[in-house]
Amino acid sequence: MPRKPAKPVADVQGQRDHRHIAIDKVGVKDILYPITVLDREARHQHTVARVSMTVNLPQRFKGTHMSRFVELLNEHCRDMSTSAIPSILRAMRARLKAETAHLEARFPYFLLKRAPVSGAAGLMSYECVVQGEGTARGVRLAAEVRVPITALCPCSKAISERGAHNQRGLVTVRFGFARFVWPEEIIHMVESSASCEIYSVLKREDEKWVTERAYDRPMFVEDVARTVARKLRRHGGLSWFSVEVENHESIHAHSAYARIDSGPDPELAAPPPAARRRGKVG
Amino acid sequence: MPRKPAKPVADVQGQRDHRHIAIDKVGVKDILYPITVLDREARHQHTVARVSMTVNLPQRFKGTHMSRFVELLNEHCRDMSTSAIPSILRAMRARLKAETAHLEARFPYFLLKRAPVSGAAGLMSYECVVQGEGTARGVRLAAEVRVPITALCPCSKAISERGAHNQRGLVTVRFGFARFVWPEEIIHMVESSASCEIYSVLKREDEKWVTERAYDRPMFVEDVARTVARKLRRHGGLSWFSVEVENHESIHAHSAYARIDSGPDPELAAPPPAARRRGKVG
Amino acid sequence: MPRKPAKPVADVQGQRDHRHIAIDKVGVKDILYPITVLDREARHQHTVARVSMTVNLPQRFKGTHMSRFVELLNEHCRDMSTSAIPSILRAMRARLKAETAHLEARFPYFLLKRAPVSGAAGLMSYECVVQGEGTARGVRLAAEVRVPITALCPCSKAISERGAHNQRGLVTVRFGFARFVWPEEIIHMVESSASCEIYSVLKREDEKWVTERAYDRPMFVEDVARTVARKLRRHGGLSWFSVEVENHESIHAHSAYARIDSGPDPELAAPPPAARRRGKVG
Amino acid sequence: MPRKPAKPVADVQGQRDHRHIAIDKVGVKDILYPITVLDREARHQHTVARVSMTVNLPQRFKGTHMSRFVELLNEHCRDMSTSAIPSILRAMRARLKAETAHLEARFPYFLLKRAPVSGAAGLMSYECVVQGEGTARGVRLAAEVRVPITALCPCSKAISERGAHNQRGLVTVRFGFARFVWPEEIIHMVESSASCEIYSVLKREDEKWVTERAYDRPMFVEDVARTVARKLRRHGGLSWFSVEVENHESIHAHSAYARIDSGPDPELAAPPPAARRRGKVG
Repeated sequence: MPRKPAKPVADVQGQRDHRHIAIDKVGVKDILYPITVLDREARHQHTVARVSMTVNLPQRFKGTHMSRFVELLNEHCRDMSTSAIPSILRAMRARLKAETAHLEARFPYFLLKRAPVSGAAGLMSYECVVQGEGTARGVRLAAEVRVPITALCPCSKAISERGAHNQRGLVTVRFGFARFVWPEEIIHMVESSASCEIYSVLKREDEKWVTERAYDRPMFVEDVARTVARKLRRHGGLSWFSVEVENHESIHAHSAYARIDSGPDPELAAPPPAARRRGKVG
Repeated sequence: MPRKPAKPVADVQGQRDHRHIAIDKVGVKDILYPITVLDREARHQHTVARVSMTVNLPQRFKGTHMSRFVELLNEHCRDMSTSAIPSILRAMRARLKAETAHLEARFPYFLLKRAPVSGAAGLMSYECVVQGEGTARGVRLAAEVRVPITALCPCSKAISERGAHNQRGLVTVRFGFARFVWPEEIIHMVESSASCEIYSVLKREDEKWVTERAYDRPMFVEDVARTVARKLRRHGGLSWFSVEVENHESIHAHSAYARIDSGPDPELAAPPPAARRRGKVG
Repeated sequence: MPRKPAKPVADVQGQRDHRHIAIDKVGVKDILYPITVLDREARHQHTVARVSMTVNLPQRFKGTHMSRFVELLNEHCRDMSTSAIPSILRAMRARLKAETAHLEARFPYFLLKRAPVSGAAGLMSYECVVQGEGTARGVRLAAEVRVPITALCPCSKAISERGAHNQRGLVTVRFGFARFVWPEEIIHMVESSASCEIYSVLKREDEKWVTERAYDRPMFVEDVARTVARKLRRHGGLSWFSVEVENHESIHAHSAYARIDSGPDPELAAPPPAARRRGKVG
Repeated sequence: MPRKPAKPVADVQGQRDHRHIAIDKVGVKDILYPITVLDREARHQHTVARVSMTVNLPQRFKGTHMSRFVELLNEHCRDMSTSAIPSILRAMRARLKAETAHLEARFPYFLLKRAPVSGAAGLMSYECVVQGEGTARGVRLAAEVRVPITALCPCSKAISERGAHNQRGLVTVRFGFARFVWPEEIIHMVESSASCEIYSVLKREDEKWVTERAYDRPMFVEDVARTVARKLRRHGGLSWFSVEVENHESIHAHSAYARIDSGPDPELAAPPPAARRRGKVG
């Protein structure tokens, strides 16, 4: 049984703060939440996201109202398609009386994929992040897509009498939206840039095919990064990008790593997100 | 400035408990701690462990004294060699007035390893766990050693015109001590049971060698598990064992997995550790 | 373009093995997969699981057919309710010609929960695992449910003039099914055994209520473990159980920990699962 | 036995590349390595680091020589004190013929700390990262220090008749070096900015003290961030900083979060590190 409050329930968060330090981001982090996102076949798919929501806090306010973030999540966020994010950000700015709102959702995204010879179908999962920043000037969107690949070492192939070491690699592409971009577009660009793509189900005839294909397309971690970067550069829908490739070497216990950045504005997608309005603290 | 206590500082933990339920294990978990362990060249090596320490609690006592675990850790546990563990367990049983004491330390263990052709030397790290259980009847020791390997798929080699998919695998061996066993003994058994072992530094001539060796020794996840199990069975110093092999397939986003158990007493090493005195609660 | 196989595509896995070592478990591990599970309101909820599937492999066979696991997953496993698991296990045993089949799925399970005073509704997530073992003698089911709680320290309250340290704790219950058990039953038992339960949304009046309730119900990690164990013992639907409580102490960087086991058969749920048929290797 | 190479061992990495895309960073990632670092009492402490090492790769070269990174690690990197990093970066640039070299090491850093009343001593661990970037113009250093704290909620205290919810928080400070900075300086600034600091060993009289101290110093996540930011701003030795506070709420399953950035150059420390030379790809 709830007890009757004897004290008045004070609004501590609404009090004035006198330290003259604005807060870039304040809010809730790591809420696990079932969401739907749009997939290219024009349907929604069900998945589970790890969600963070923040707003800025001007220097005169002591605190934000944390429960409002979760209320907003419950009201608006079952649909986390990038097309739904602008209205969520608008609601956050209004309800929390903030100039800036940020939202981030990290979730596995599933695609049905057919084996290359047998056509056997299986679900592949790709880790995705969508991020939105809403201000009075509008909304900026960014995303991250992680694509597993096969990488076969050109040096190992060139120097060996037989065989070549190969391994699973993970390609992480981060980018800003100049226009709407499907995760499928990024996934396809990456998968076509590797020694071979990765599948969920492979029958014997498929395994022969992927083995030989990887052997015929040897690639260093640098090659994969460059091939993906060239495609991202030509895409037309991205305001900036970065590509990271990490090969879980089958002959070492560490990874081989390469990274290429396009230039402006990587921060929007960088986890944890970095400052945008400079100099305000000092 | 510490304040003067106005209330007497009561021993709440020492009070009687009336629920008639004994507690199998109570204590502290996940303390990060710098330790030394013995390595085979008869010297101590420095590493960092994640330590858990527990005792049993008879049904009549309300609680244990948590600070005593950390005090004991500070007094005794800089050296966590398996030879030092019996005295730590004895001290735990005495200080906490317990019948049973458990200790677990998880740490990377480093070995210098030479590349197969060039002889170039580099440090390899192997994740190890040591576990001890102390009772009035004595001490039982168990351990876990994780060894990364290269695994090359026999099916892929057999059906393909050229190449064969291969990947990093991870072999986890858990075992009870019938006599003292060096981690090096287990590591060597596992490394000699794979398509090829893994190295820290490989020059070009070494890379040729490991590539061809793996191609010449194709092994399924089942083959590695069986080969390791056969060696563990013949070892003579183990009271029980289990071996798990997990290959991070280069053609899939999931792992291939195999496990073989020897039989009695796997619980001592199972994380989280399972019950030993049966039926006492029901 | 797939190439024409010049070699015949051999069945390497079907070959005989001569090492006379049976394999307890072989299969696929860590497949991320969108599933539905039953929730108590008689509807299915959508979530995402990490799935592992294994079978035993008699000593005469060289290898299992890994692709069949993923095919079975695609055919049968969209519904991973415990009521659907027996038929999946039957299909695994048939398709892989095995005596024993194991399935494990780990997923977040979501429940709508109302704040104690305001009634504000929000989704809570609880990590669950379901495990099934199918043999010729039938199916055994086990599960694991993780419930976050608030724990307030009785010692801190007793000795201090004001306040008491409290923290988030995590209670992990593992159990075997004597009859069908809802996750909601376990969750309710745990939440009613803590200093206070945890909520997704709390308005100001709720925050007052949970603060005072936790202060009025101080509990050691031992108390929570015992209270939960007593309820599990009386439940009637469990063939065995274990309860672990881990408090992420607000005054330390490590956890306080307690564990109580009921007795028989903890292995079914222990991750990684331990041996069941003893002595067969040695 | 190593076999005799029949093919000449070609320098594949040294070949020309024709895609006209420079690579920002290429190298090795996640090597576990035992290191020493300087601690303030003018001695070295032993710890274990997760190390990554990269260089830039001009557009005309196909690949870098991965084994040289690990050789350099073995030759130079037992000592990873910030004072030793410039010479490691110089060696990386020379051996790999690169303009830019980056090094990152993540490790637990241990300090002996005394309980506030009893004076009982215990080791605390703080996760630290050091990062160095070496170019022809010199070396830039950055670091990250993570400090666990106790945070007690001012709102909960204000509205409740008794008690107040509190929890473990984690404060992450990232900063650039204007001059040499000890981790101890950052740790002390953070620990003095929380409701209470965290200890490894607390006797009963200490537990009373920390409980009452936290109750007397209630702080929102915003308060901790602002208090730390104000101290960092006044420090004098930092070229830039960011502070993140994450409270693992004892009444919720998610975290409360706040972040303040000082301004210029957060990228140096952002993991993964973002682009520095802009526009070169597009």
